[in-house]
Amino acid sequence: MSILIKSTTVITQNASREIIKDCDILINENKIAAVGKNINQKAELVLDAKNKIAMPGFINSHTHVAMALVRGMGEDLPLQRWLQEKIWPTEAKLKPVQVYYGTLLGICEMLRSGVTSFLDMYLVGLDEIGKACEQAGIRGSLSDAVINMPGHGVERATAFSKKWKNKSSLVTPHISCHSIYACTEEMLVKSKELADKEKLKFHIHISETRKEIFDCLNKTKKYPIEYLDSLDLVDENTVLAHASWVTKREIAVAAKRKATIVNCPISNLKLATGGVCPVREYHQQGANVCIGTDGPASNNSLNMFESIKLSSLLQKHHYWKADVLPTQSFLDFATINGAKALGINTGSIEKGKLADIILLDARSNASNLNPQHDLVSNLVYAASPANVTDVIINGKIVMQDRNILTIEEDKIIEQVNKITF
Amino acid sequence: MSILIKSTTVITQNASREIIKDCDILINENKIAAVGKNINQKAELVLDAKNKIAMPGFINSHTHVAMALVRGMGEDLPLQRWLQEKIWPTEAKLKPVQVYYGTLLGICEMLRSGVTSFLDMYLVGLDEIGKACEQAGIRGSLSDAVINMPGHGVERATAFSKKWKNKSSLVTPHISCHSIYACTEEMLVKSKELADKEKLKFHIHISETRKEIFDCLNKTKKYPIEYLDSLDLVDENTVLAHASWVTKREIAVAAKRKATIVNCPISNLKLATGGVCPVREYHQQGANVCIGTDGPASNNSLNMFESIKLSSLLQKHHYWKADVLPTQSFLDFATINGAKALGINTGSIEKGKLADIILLDARSNASNLNPQHDLVSNLVYAASPANVTDVIINGKIVMQDRNILTIEEDKIIEQVNKITF
Repeated sequence: MSILIKSTTVITQNASREIIKDCDILINENKIAAVGKNINQKAELVLDAKNKIAMPGFINSHTHVAMALVRGMGEDLPLQRWLQEKIWPTEAKLKPVQVYYGTLLGICEMLRSGVTSFLDMYLVGLDEIGKACEQAGIRGSLSDAVINMPGHGVERATAFSKKWKNKSSLVTPHISCHSIYACTEEMLVKSKELADKEKLKFHIHISETRKEIFDCLNKTKKYPIEYLDSLDLVDENTVLAHASWVTKREIAVAAKRKATIVNCPISNLKLATGGVCPVREYHQQGANVCIGTDGPASNNSLNMFESIKLSSLLQKHHYWKADVLPTQSFLDFATINGAKALGINTGSIEKGKLADIILLDARSNASNLNPQHDLVSNLVYAASPANVTDVIINGKIVMQDRNILTIEEDKIIEQVNKITF
Repeated sequence: MSILIKSTTVITQNASREIIKDCDILINENKIAAVGKNINQKAELVLDAKNKIAMPGFINSHTHVAMALVRGMGEDLPLQRWLQEKIWPTEAKLKPVQVYYGTLLGICEMLRSGVTSFLDMYLVGLDEIGKACEQAGIRGSLSDAVINMPGHGVERATAFSKKWKNKSSLVTPHISCHSIYACTEEMLVKSKELADKEKLKFHIHISETRKEIFDCLNKTKKYPIEYLDSLDLVDENTVLAHASWVTKREIAVAAKRKATIVNCPISNLKLATGGVCPVREYHQQGANVCIGTDGPASNNSLNMFESIKLSSLLQKHHYWKADVLPTQSFLDFATINGAKALGINTGSIEKGKLADIILLDARSNASNLNPQHDLVSNLVYAASPANVTDVIINGKIVMQDRNILTIEEDKIIEQVNKITF
């Protein structure tokens, strides 16, 4: 299939961060074949995108999509009671069919906020999550989390990664450990060995709460990222989610190892973890900073626009400095840096890249995106899911004119309300 | 005109915060005539609102709507340079026609995020702002700000309030002083006298930045709210915007006087003012807490959902306490408390109240609003402008099925891009 997107404004996110007006994009099969003015080649489908903005789809670099199913459950409880009385007992009895519909629900929400890829960590119904991604046509980087509970060891993670490796153009298996406090040292080391052997990413929650820091110090005499590093677990294939309560030495370690740091500001605030991810230091020292919504249980949405905006606002607030980091950085974190974290050939609109592209209508029903003094600022601070009209993933149109084509959102919503608790 | 909204879920915001499923709402002229199940009275227009949520429209209690025109201008400059090099010079040469279109643009954006009333402060083209509100059909509480610049004294504010008082069912004039640092003491006192005499609200920016606190201390030996109180300017008709850098004594004063406090968290973070409005203390001690987007220059949107969500998240973060305030409070701040601040008979869906109602589709394209474990949580933490389908203000349908009926959004956007700088 070939698609020609005509006469649009392209936020390329290429090396020079070019923005090209009145530009065409040619897609052949699953890749971008050309980007430029007046492309004359024929295509099977022509999308007139005048008055629209084309940009690389967002990459949600840390989430637990299936938890859309528990959105709003146990609100207003203190954190420990929320986990112990509501979330964990619910997750313990989750059935694969519930995970399946919860995932489909979350995918609908992500598509509507322009997400074309996501890095997920979950521990139930992984095959269902993979199936949901394939049906929806979204790129899912999935992992069956290793956690110190019966049946959730490295063997299970291995089985999942073997089953899905090179089997799907959309689903890529990776390896994750829930956390240093929920995994044994042996589990951590074996998981990373497996990831390295299979050339997969190693994804872990780290330094999210203060308690975790002190428990780690008491047990290992090291701070969490130093501890991981002492086990040789931190490198450019390591994805550290949260990484908020950290020392300067840990920032330097993560940066030196070129690790990925996923900032999940909404979840951190909602759970009142108190920590603010030092995005500025990580970024300036050379770590690969990305943005995640975290799961919809602790957000409570999968709206990437919110997470991108708050990532920037929170840095400004934290440093008492309105110009702490350029606005452009936050678009980078949510696109090209995300692609690097997930190891996928996307994140920018350039010839040869995978065709993961979203269109935003900047004219119709788009008062919030005007005037257009600064398109990047408008995308980072003013856009919302209401502006996203079309989503193309792997060269296929997944959402067109705000209609999701691949899965039936209405029926999924109906089903979710039936099977929920 | 009479309207019957059929079979909807009503978030009443009445005294017992009732949520009524499968409920009808009858509107007669500009008021709510009945709320209940199976209303059999006939109406000129029947809206089938099955699968929708009806709630009182949001009240944006502090903004400068016309500044939609400078959205994104001078991004990434430090605060003082942004003001001095970009915003102030632009505002100094603003023409009324620009204010008019900027206001219309901002109103479109507010309607799409469910705002039915707003409290504005501006200093150019006030009649144009009023005209825009009347044309759009939105409730505007406006003021021509008193500021120590030629032609912006109390006389001008008086002229505006006299011209518009009791002239419009939608536009209500009030009195505002820009700030204690931009007004003389005489201006502050005379403005409040005028407000009291004419039974208008007195609206002022206060304690937004640290500099303001120290300047006030140096000049008056008092903290800003104590200073205002020493001049007898703080009472239940006083609206204090920001009020973030405050002492506990000032919180107690504001609460004792039953003043309104408008929390504008996005603007505070974006401008890196560093202060966090102590919403918890104000609310618990009895001040009337509201929520504002502030102007789109420092937000950069007029999306009330974002401001409501961040108001809550920031309190959780600031106190390291996930259950610092109930979720319900934040819906109250954005509805009934706003109505109290503006002195309008709205903010809840009850017989006798003005018919300012919004409908959100909770089924179609609404993956983010499901499952429905907790409707209030979904509205505060998961909803977005994409969910708002209909807006009724003063008994008139202003937006229907996501189409703004009263003004032409497309043409406004076109015009705004022509007349902008």
